[in-house]
Amino acid sequence: MKLDIKYIDGGICAAKGFKASGMYCGIKKPANDDPSIKHKNDICLYTSDVLCNAAAVYTQNKVKGAPILVTKANLEKSGNKAMAVIANSKNANTCNADGVEKADRMCELVANELNLPKEQVIVASTGVIGQILPIEPIEKAVPVLAKALDYGKNEEAATAIMTTDTVKKEYAVEFTLGGKTCHIGGMAKGSGMIHPNMATTLNFITSDCVISAELLQKALSDIVKITYNCLSIDGDTSTNDMVVLMSNGLAQNDEIKEHTEEFEIFKSALFEVMGELTKMLAKDGEGATKLLACCCYGATDVDKAITVAKSVICSNLFKCAMFGKDANWGRILCAIGYADAEFDINKVGVEIGSEFGIIKVCENGAGVDFSEDEAAEILKSDEITINVYLNEGDRCATAWGCDLTYDYVKINGDYRT
Amino acid sequence: MKLDIKYIDGGICAAKGFKASGMYCGIKKPANDDPSIKHKNDICLYTSDVLCNAAAVYTQNKVKGAPILVTKANLEKSGNKAMAVIANSKNANTCNADGVEKADRMCELVANELNLPKEQVIVASTGVIGQILPIEPIEKAVPVLAKALDYGKNEEAATAIMTTDTVKKEYAVEFTLGGKTCHIGGMAKGSGMIHPNMATTLNFITSDCVISAELLQKALSDIVKITYNCLSIDGDTSTNDMVVLMSNGLAQNDEIKEHTEEFEIFKSALFEVMGELTKMLAKDGEGATKLLACCCYGATDVDKAITVAKSVICSNLFKCAMFGKDANWGRILCAIGYADAEFDINKVGVEIGSEFGIIKVCENGAGVDFSEDEAAEILKSDEITINVYLNEGDRCATAWGCDLTYDYVKINGDYRT
Repeated sequence: MKLDIKYIDGGICAAKGFKASGMYCGIKKPANDDPSIKHKNDICLYTSDVLCNAAAVYTQNKVKGAPILVTKANLEKSGNKAMAVIANSKNANTCNADGVEKADRMCELVANELNLPKEQVIVASTGVIGQILPIEPIEKAVPVLAKALDYGKNEEAATAIMTTDTVKKEYAVEFTLGGKTCHIGGMAKGSGMIHPNMATTLNFITSDCVISAELLQKALSDIVKITYNCLSIDGDTSTNDMVVLMSNGLAQNDEIKEHTEEFEIFKSALFEVMGELTKMLAKDGEGATKLLACCCYGATDVDKAITVAKSVICSNLFKCAMFGKDANWGRILCAIGYADAEFDINKVGVEIGSEFGIIKVCENGAGVDFSEDEAAEILKSDEITINVYLNEGDRCATAWGCDLTYDYVKINGDYRT
Repeated sequence: MKLDIKYIDGGICAAKGFKASGMYCGIKKPANDDPSIKHKNDICLYTSDVLCNAAAVYTQNKVKGAPILVTKANLEKSGNKAMAVIANSKNANTCNADGVEKADRMCELVANELNLPKEQVIVASTGVIGQILPIEPIEKAVPVLAKALDYGKNEEAATAIMTTDTVKKEYAVEFTLGGKTCHIGGMAKGSGMIHPNMATTLNFITSDCVISAELLQKALSDIVKITYNCLSIDGDTSTNDMVVLMSNGLAQNDEIKEHTEEFEIFKSALFEVMGELTKMLAKDGEGATKLLACCCYGATDVDKAITVAKSVICSNLFKCAMFGKDANWGRILCAIGYADAEFDINKVGVEIGSEFGIIKVCENGAGVDFSEDEAAEILKSDEITINVYLNEGDRCATAWGCDLTYDYVKINGDYRT
C-alpha cells in the first residue's frame, strides 16, 4: 500500500466545501490584563455546502456538558447527518439547570439563520463549569457569524475555541483515493482538564471523502484510541470532551468501503491529522515547557502498550523531573510498575532520548551506568521521548503529555477570575 | 461498646517493651544548603524486648524495593514473628542488581549484633530509586544503633525515616482491654510518591497487646483500606510502600479473639493511630499548604464512597484550585463524574467547608447560588473538607490529600541532587 499523505494549510477548511467564521461576542468580559486569555474570539461557526455524514465520540465522564447531550440527541434524530457546527469558549455550559435549553437554543439560532433542520446542527462549549451561559451575546452573534462564513476562515474558528491554549491547533492533509484528491483537516483546543477517556477535549475534523456515517464512526473510534486517548495533560477527564468528524463527499471518490485499501488510506490520513493535533495539545498543555512522548515497545498487545505508556506520561513525579531536566529514571520505572497491566518487570528496559541523543538508563528492570552529563544534554530539548521495552511481544503504542511546571499551578490556582 | 482511646506521647515506643534509636551514618552526603533535607538522621533501629507477632502489607507496584522482597521472605520464614526493624532513608535500594543482597546484609548485621535469627529482622528503605546503596556506613552504624537503643528514643527513629518530610509523623494511643492497659503507636514517612495501593509508604506500628499474627494481619488489612489507602499526595504508588505492625503481648491482656468486643476496640485504636498518621502524611505532602479531606456520604457501599472521595482528592485541577483558594466546584463535580463507580450524577450534592464555615455549592448535579465572599473566607483555612452526597445509600468514606503547589514542582524538579 503506497501512502502519499501530505500536510497542507487550511485546518477545518482544507476539505472542499467547508466554510468557517469566528468572532468575539462577549460570553465573558475580557480582562485585558488577564494573561490566561490568549485570544479574544469566543464563538465560531462552520458549515458544509452539502449535507455531511457525521461521527462523534463523547466524554465518558458521568458529568456531561449540556452541549454533549444536545449534540448526541441531534445526531440520533438526524441519522448521523450534519451541516453546521457552533462552538463557544469561556463557558462550558455544564452543571447548569438551564444548560440543555441553552445548548438547544444555540442549535436553533444556527438552524434558523441557515435554514436547516435543528438536528443537523452540532453544538460544543468549553470553559468554566457551573456558570450560567449568557445567551444574549450568542443570539446577537449567530447572524454575524453566518454572514461572515467563508472558505478561508479556519483560523478565526480555531482561535475562538481556545481557553488557556497559547497557540491554535490546526492540521490538515491531502491524499488520493482512486485518482481523486481528498482532504481531512481538523482543529482542537487544549490545554487543561485533558485526560481523554473514549473521547477528548473539543476536536473538530472535516473531510470531503465519500464515506458512510457507519464507516466514519469506525475510523474515528479506531483512531481516537491511539491518538487522543493516548494523551494526558493532567489526569482530569473533562465533562465536555467531544470529537466530531464530518465528511461531505465533495471529493467525489468512489465510496470508501470496509476492508479495502481505500479505508486503510483514509484511516492513515485521519491518524495523521489526529496524531498531529494530539501532539500539539500535549506540547501546549497548561504551563508546559516540554512535549513528552512515551513509546512502549515489545508488548503482547496494543492495550497493554497503551496502559504502560500512559502510566508514565501521567506520573506527576516524572513530569516534574522532566521540567527539572533530571534523568530520575527510577520514577519512570515506578510508573511502569504501577501500570494496570501484566508483564514481567524484570525484562523491562528504558531509554531517554531527544534530538540531542539517546541513552539507556535501565535494563532487565535494574539501572545501568550512564553519563549524567549526556543525560543533561539530552534533557535540554523541549521534546523528550521515553522508550520502554517490555521485551515480551511485538506490539507498541505511544502516549503523549507534558511536564508539570510552576505555570500549571499558577494557571489553575485561579482559573475562574 | 464504650470506646476510651486516648492520645499519648511516645510514638513507636509507647507500647511496652519497644526500644528505638536513630542516627546519621552518611548514606548520602548531606548538602548543608540543600533545603529539601529537613533532618540529618538517615538510619534507625527499633526492637521489642520479647518476640512479636507481626503483620505487614506491601506495595502493589510491580517494581518492588529489595527491602520489600527481603522482609516478605523473612516473615514467611519466621512464621510472622519479628524482634527488630532496621530502616534507612536517602536511598530506596530499589532497581539495583545487588539490592536483595544489601537488604539481606542489613538484616544480618542487626541479627548478629542483637543475637537473633536473621529472619526475625524487618528491613525498610526509602529515598532515591536506582542508586546503589552504600553498605559500609550501615555496617559501621548498626553496632552504634544497637548500643543506643532505649525506650524513649522514638523521635530519633521517626526523624531518621524522613525524606522530603518537613515534620516527623508519630502518633500513639492508650486503651483498656479487660482491665489491662494497652498501647498502639506508630511512625510514618511521607511526602511524595504517595498514592498507596493496598499498602502505603513506610509506616511502622507497634503494640503490646496479646493478639495472634493472623488477627493482627486482619486488623491491619481492614484499617489500611480506610486510612492509608484513602490517601494520595501525587498519584504515584511507591515501589517501597510497606506498613508493618508488631505486637509483643507485654500488656498481658487476655488474647484478643475474632468477633469479640476486644477485637473491635483493638481495631478502633489501630484506626485512631493509622488515621492520624494518614492525616499527618497528607498535611505534610510535598509542597503542601493545605490538608484536603473529601468525605463521601450516601453511597450504597464503602468501596464506592472511597472511589468517589479518592477521585476528588487526586484531581490536579481541584488541588490547584484549593492552593489558589478558588471555589471552583465544577472541578470537584468533574472529578466525581470520572470516578470509576456507578451512581446517579443528577442526585449529587457538594459542600465546601473548613473551621470558618460551610457552604453548599451544588445540588442535584447542578450549581446553586453561593456567596463567593463566604467561599473565599472558608478557603483561607489550611484544612479544607469537601462533602459529597451521593444520596443513594447510607455508607460513607473519607479520602485525604493536599493541594498542588509551586513547591511540589520545585521539590520534584530536582530531587536527586
